[in-house]
Amino acid sequence: MSTAVLTNIRIVLVDTNHPGNIGGAARAMKNMGITQLHLVSPKQFPDPQARARAASALDILQQAVVHDSLENAISGCGLVIGTSARERRIPWPLLDSRSAAEQVVAELFKEKACSGDAAQPIAILFGREDRGLTNDELQRCNFHMTIPTDAYSSLNLAAAVQVFCYELRMAALSDYTVEVEWDKPPASNDDLERYYEHLENVLVDINFIDPKAPRQTMTRLRRFYNRLRPDEMELAMLRGILTYIERIITK
Amino acid sequence: MSTAVLTNIRIVLVDTNHPGNIGGAARAMKNMGITQLHLVSPKQFPDPQARARAASALDILQQAVVHDSLENAISGCGLVIGTSARERRIPWPLLDSRSAAEQVVAELFKEKACSGDAAQPIAILFGREDRGLTNDELQRCNFHMTIPTDAYSSLNLAAAVQVFCYELRMAALSDYTVEVEWDKPPASNDDLERYYEHLENVLVDINFIDPKAPRQTMTRLRRFYNRLRPDEMELAMLRGILTYIERIITK
Repeated sequence: MSTAVLTNIRIVLVDTNHPGNIGGAARAMKNMGITQLHLVSPKQFPDPQARARAASALDILQQAVVHDSLENAISGCGLVIGTSARERRIPWPLLDSRSAAEQVVAELFKEKACSGDAAQPIAILFGREDRGLTNDELQRCNFHMTIPTDAYSSLNLAAAVQVFCYELRMAALSDYTVEVEWDKPPASNDDLERYYEHLENVLVDINFIDPKAPRQTMTRLRRFYNRLRPDEMELAMLRGILTYIERIITK
Repeated sequence: MSTAVLTNIRIVLVDTNHPGNIGGAARAMKNMGITQLHLVSPKQFPDPQARARAASALDILQQAVVHDSLENAISGCGLVIGTSARERRIPWPLLDSRSAAEQVVAELFKEKACSGDAAQPIAILFGREDRGLTNDELQRCNFHMTIPTDAYSSLNLAAAVQVFCYELRMAALSDYTVEVEWDKPPASNDDLERYYEHLENVLVDINFIDPKAPRQTMTRLRRFYNRLRPDEMELAMLRGILTYIERIITK
């Protein structure tokens, strides 16, 4: 999967009151590789507070497009998704942030496959800090998205943009697994067996195990070390320790 | 699944420079139902900027515990996870934010099943705004967590706390079931630290470590045992072995 499709997402902030939130949203977008910011009737923009909060995302602010109506902001878009913290009187398809992101990304790939560079952007609408989107605005959406929060709690605007842009990136990366570049190969099973034998001998030598009544000691130690496979260097170190113990004993 | 286990998570902010970020982190936590905030040597706290950014999460700020060392902040914790944006010289188990959250929540349910109300908290460490966590701090962690971002980009502190707390909530809400079939509770972090100290002493005694040139031996051993997360009985056994070695040596 590739995150290149994310550039076809349009984040639309509707009637934002505080310019700092516009900057915070730009920074959140940039972190996740989402670049198209559209603003509907922002109260103050451009503004120094927006630039301050944007940090390294000034380019996103500079390219932001300001509209005088939501209609213009979503013109030419394919899917339109509205964010909503509240239950609405008229039920609308409502997805949580994860499912919504998966659906958006699936749609982006579909658009790309069908239309290539002419793919329509997908718009995600975020409403006013205090009242969110109006019913009329929500009714322009294909579906609604909500971020699960604790009771009586709501995210501030930049945090909501952050969480949803993160989900979009995770969806685009989906079969992405973090590659742990380990520096040594795992020890072989034979080497592990030799280690257990060596360990048991030393434990008998230091009287930790009584060979006449060994109980479950070795079983527990095996379970312990088998739970994750040591790498070659780790096992060499563990065996080295046993050898040093033996040297001390036979002095 | 229930989100009640999230109250057993301890968010630890290390050496935070800007009090506003502490407030932002508190708000992010509260949104997701996570309440325990611990601060290691914050530059300015309490502070009006922290309160302003916290909004409705003032209760979390008021209950925040301030420590003078990381050691105190994670004392009594079970699992310790460090957030990291960079590659480190010695690779450590590194999970992305989603897998890390799933593992934390699985561990929370396991702790709860074994120990009920006495369950050990799980600590999530967030480092300095500019430099993150030091190598020494990262080596105290069972594993590291990274939030996938776009190239040359990093999240600000409150945004990182927001994203990870969101993932923790999503993991707790998922119907991902956890198998709890373990006979002993996991060893505490304090006990593990005491084990490392004991181990290092013995390794010096048996000449495996040269105290004048210790190299990376203890780092690699820490990485190894931290990955394993011994349970209480296993750790008792490992310490028992050290004691028996000491007895042989001093004969």
